[in-house]
Amino acid sequence: MTIFSTDFDFLLMSLREQFQLSSAIAVLHWDQEVFMPELALQSRSDQLAVLTAQLHRLQSSSHFERQLSEFLSLEDGQLLRDDFSVSEKRLLFLTYKQWRKASVLPESFVADFAALKSQAQFYWQKARSSDDPSDFLPYLSRIIESSRLYAGYMDPHADAYDVLLDDYEEGMTGTRLEAVFQPLQQELKDLLAGISKNSRLVFDRPFCLDKQQSLNLDLLQALGFSLSEGRLDRSAHPFTTSFHPKDVRLTTRYQEKDLFEALSSTVHEAGHGLYEQGLPLEWAGLPIGQAVSLGIHESQSRLWENMVMKSYPFWQGFYPKVQSIFSDNLSKVSLAAFYQHCLTVKPGLIRVESDEVTYNMHIFIRFDLERRLISGKLGVTDLPEAWAAAYEAMLGIRPKTYAEGFLQDVHWSCGLFGYFPTYALGNIYAAQLFDQIKKDLPDIYTDFEKGDFSALLTWLRQHVHSQASLYQADDLMTRCCGRGLDAGPFLAYLREKYID
Amino acid sequence: MTIFSTDFDFLLMSLREQFQLSSAIAVLHWDQEVFMPELALQSRSDQLAVLTAQLHRLQSSSHFERQLSEFLSLEDGQLLRDDFSVSEKRLLFLTYKQWRKASVLPESFVADFAALKSQAQFYWQKARSSDDPSDFLPYLSRIIESSRLYAGYMDPHADAYDVLLDDYEEGMTGTRLEAVFQPLQQELKDLLAGISKNSRLVFDRPFCLDKQQSLNLDLLQALGFSLSEGRLDRSAHPFTTSFHPKDVRLTTRYQEKDLFEALSSTVHEAGHGLYEQGLPLEWAGLPIGQAVSLGIHESQSRLWENMVMKSYPFWQGFYPKVQSIFSDNLSKVSLAAFYQHCLTVKPGLIRVESDEVTYNMHIFIRFDLERRLISGKLGVTDLPEAWAAAYEAMLGIRPKTYAEGFLQDVHWSCGLFGYFPTYALGNIYAAQLFDQIKKDLPDIYTDFEKGDFSALLTWLRQHVHSQASLYQADDLMTRCCGRGLDAGPFLAYLREKYID
Repeated sequence: MTIFSTDFDFLLMSLREQFQLSSAIAVLHWDQEVFMPELALQSRSDQLAVLTAQLHRLQSSSHFERQLSEFLSLEDGQLLRDDFSVSEKRLLFLTYKQWRKASVLPESFVADFAALKSQAQFYWQKARSSDDPSDFLPYLSRIIESSRLYAGYMDPHADAYDVLLDDYEEGMTGTRLEAVFQPLQQELKDLLAGISKNSRLVFDRPFCLDKQQSLNLDLLQALGFSLSEGRLDRSAHPFTTSFHPKDVRLTTRYQEKDLFEALSSTVHEAGHGLYEQGLPLEWAGLPIGQAVSLGIHESQSRLWENMVMKSYPFWQGFYPKVQSIFSDNLSKVSLAAFYQHCLTVKPGLIRVESDEVTYNMHIFIRFDLERRLISGKLGVTDLPEAWAAAYEAMLGIRPKTYAEGFLQDVHWSCGLFGYFPTYALGNIYAAQLFDQIKKDLPDIYTDFEKGDFSALLTWLRQHVHSQASLYQADDLMTRCCGRGLDAGPFLAYLREKYID
Repeated sequence: MTIFSTDFDFLLMSLREQFQLSSAIAVLHWDQEVFMPELALQSRSDQLAVLTAQLHRLQSSSHFERQLSEFLSLEDGQLLRDDFSVSEKRLLFLTYKQWRKASVLPESFVADFAALKSQAQFYWQKARSSDDPSDFLPYLSRIIESSRLYAGYMDPHADAYDVLLDDYEEGMTGTRLEAVFQPLQQELKDLLAGISKNSRLVFDRPFCLDKQQSLNLDLLQALGFSLSEGRLDRSAHPFTTSFHPKDVRLTTRYQEKDLFEALSSTVHEAGHGLYEQGLPLEWAGLPIGQAVSLGIHESQSRLWENMVMKSYPFWQGFYPKVQSIFSDNLSKVSLAAFYQHCLTVKPGLIRVESDEVTYNMHIFIRFDLERRLISGKLGVTDLPEAWAAAYEAMLGIRPKTYAEGFLQDVHWSCGLFGYFPTYALGNIYAAQLFDQIKKDLPDIYTDFEKGDFSALLTWLRQHVHSQASLYQADDLMTRCCGRGLDAGPFLAYLREKYID
C-alpha cells in the first residue's frame, strides 16, 4: 500500500475485523467436521447463526459504508480518486464487491434462503439414502428459483448463471466455459477410447492406519507444508480450511484396504494448503490477500495430486519407503505395477471416485445441466432422466439408482450453482501451469525422483501464491503461462501420460 | 419461566445471543490449547480480540440496556415488579450483575488491564524460567493496583478482596474464609503429623500411551460422561471447558512412567465435565444456567477424584482391569500396594503435585498472601520471602528457587486474585456432599466395587447439577446437606481415610 492516509488505514482495520470474525466462523466449521461431538450440532448451529449475523452487521454497517464511501461511489463502485496503486485499486474493487454482496440482499431473503438450503440438504440426504427423490425435487426447484432471485439482486441485467459463476470464478461466463468445454469433451472421448482400462490392485492385508498416518504426515512435510502453521486431521470428507496463512487445516481419510486413497487425498489437500500458506502475510485479512478463485485453488490441488504425485519419478523416489513400511502387502509389487495401480483409468458413475481422464466429463455433464436448470430450459422433474442420458452419452454407462445418479453430490442442495465448473478449470489451469513449470525448471522430474519439491514450490509461491487476488484468474494465468484459459496443455498432458 | 411476555422473551434472546458469542470464544481458546499450530498464536489473538470486543458491545449495548431496564433499575438492580418467580428473580439478579460488570468499567481501563495482564504473563514466564523475578515484580505490582481499581469500579464501598472473590464465589468474603481456614489449618497440621509419609511406587517399564488413552476413555464413560456430548483430548495442562451442556471438552495428560497421573487428571476433569453435562438444557445460554461458583465446580472434580477414585472399593472394582492391561508393570503389585500408591501423602513445594491432605495448606498460604497484597499490608518486594517463610511454617519445607516458590502459579500474573480459595472450598464442599451422599446412598461403596457410578451421578444431577445457579453456593449446600460451608466433614473424611 502506498497510501498512508488515516482513512485508508481505518478501512483496512475494518476489513481485518470482518476477516477475524469470518476466521472464527471457519474455526467453528472446522471443529464441527473434525472433532465436535455428534449431539452438539444444534448448539453449534446456534453459535454460527450469531457469528454470521454479527459478521453481516459489520459488513453492512453504516460505519463501514461511510469508510468505504470515502474512496468510491457506493452506487457503482467508481473510484473517487485516480492516485491509487494497482493493488489499492484491486483491493477497493474487491472490497466493493464484498460489501455489495453483503448489503444488496434483503435480510428476509438471506434468512429465507438460508432456511431453505438447510431444509433442502435434509431432504437431499433423505432422498439419497432412500433413493426416492420425490420429496427433494420441490425443494430443489425452490433452490433454483431463489438462486435466480439472488442473481437478480446482484445484477438484474446479467445472465443469471454468469452471476452465480462469478462468485466462485470472478469474470468467467457460461459462454466462455462452453467454448472451452465442448471441444475438450469430444477430444476426451476420443482419448478415452484409446486407453486400455485396467483394474486396481487388490491387497491381501489391511494397511495399518497408524503407519499410514505417520507416512502421510512425512509426505506432507516433504512437499513443503509447514506443520507449525497447519495440521492434518481425519474427517469423513477430506477438505482444507484456512484461518490465516499461519493456520491452515487439512483433513484426509484413511482406508485399511488401500493406502493410495489417503495419500492422494492428503496430497490433493496439501496443494490447497500450500496455496493458503503461501498467501502474502502483509495482505492477510484483506480481500486482496485471499485465494483468487476456486479454479485457481483447484489447480493447486490438482497439480500436486496429478502432475506431481501421479508421476513415475515421484514413485521412483517414494515407493521404496512405502514398500518397506508396508512390506507385507507390497514386497512383491513392483514399482511399475504400483505406478499402474495409481494410474488406473475407468469410466464410472461417481465423480469423486473418478480418475484424471474422466473427471472432467462428470463436470461437463453437471455444467450443462445446471446451466439449463438456472435458465429454465430444464425442469427439475426432467433432471433425473437428463442426468442418466448424459452419462450414457458421455461415458457409456447409466446409473441404476438416483443415489449414484443426480443425487450423488451435495452442491445443488446447498445452492452451489456455478461451483462445479471450477473443478474442470482446476484441471485445465493445473496442466497449463505445469507445462510452463517444465519449461522453467527442466530438472523438475529429477527433483521428484529425489523427493525434492522445493523448486516447484518456490515457482508456485512466486508466480501464483504470492499474487493472491491481485489479478483475476485469467490475467494471473496469462502472467504465469503467457496465455489465459486454454485446454491444450491439459489434453497434451493426458495424451503423453496415457497414450504415448 | 412463568412469564411469557414478549419483552422477557426478547431479553432471553439477547442473553442467549451473548452466550453463543462467548461459547465461540471458548471454542477458540480450547482449540488454542489442544490443536492449534504453534505459529498461529498471533492470528488467534487477533480473532479473540475481535470476538471479545463484539461480546462487550452486545453486553453493554443500549439495545440490551433498554431491554433490561424494562424489568429492573439499572442504577441499583432493584426489580420494577414483584410478580417474578424465584428463578426469574435469580435470573434477573445474575443478569444485572453480568451487565454491570460489562458496563461499569471504562473501556480504556479494560484495554489497559488486558494489555498489562498479557505483559505480566510474559514476564512471569521469563522470570520462572530464569528464576529471576526482578523484571516481573513491577508488573505484579501494577496488576495488584489495577485489581484494586477494578474492585473500586465494581463496588467502591466494599472490601477490595471481597469484590474480587465474588467474581469466582458469589457472596463469599475474606473474613468468612479466614474463620473457616484458620482452625482447619491447625487441624490439618496435627493430622499430617500423624500420617506416615511413604513414597510412590516406581515402575520398571513405560505405560503404553495408546493403552492408557483407551483405558481413560473407558473409565470416563463408566463414570457417566457422554462422549456423544463431549470429548477427551490431550493438553499440556489438563482442563475442562464447555460450549453448551451438549458440548463439553476435557483434556488430560499422559505420562509413560506412571499411569496414575492421567487417570487422576481424567477423573478430576470428568467431575467438572459431568457437572457441565448435567446443567439444565432449558436454561442453557442464560446466566442462571451456568455453574454456580468455582468452589462448587471444584467440589465436583474433587469428589470424583478423591472420594470416588481414591477409595479402596473403586480400586477393588477397577484394579483387575488395569492390572491385566499393564501386566508387565503390575502383575506383582497387589491391590493394597497400588491403593497405597494412590494415597501417598508427602508435603511438597508444588501445589499441583500435592495430595489431598496437604493441598489445602498450599491454598491457605496463597489466600493469606494475596489478601495482604490486595490490602497493601504486604508489598511485592517482600512477597518472595513471605512465601518461603509461610511454606516453612506450614509444611516444614522451604523453596530453594523462586520457580518452586511464588513463581509456580500463573494466576496472579493473569490478575486472578480471589481465585485460589475456591480450590480449598472445593475440597471442603466435596467432603460435605459426600458425607450426605453416604447417608442417602448407603450402598455407594458396593456400587464403586461393581464399577457402577449411576446412583452417585443421579444424586449429583438431582441435588447439584440440575440446580445450576438457581441458588448461591452456600444456599445450595444448605439444601444439599442441611448446612452451609463447614470444614467438619472434610476433616472427618481425612481422618477416617488416613488415620483410622
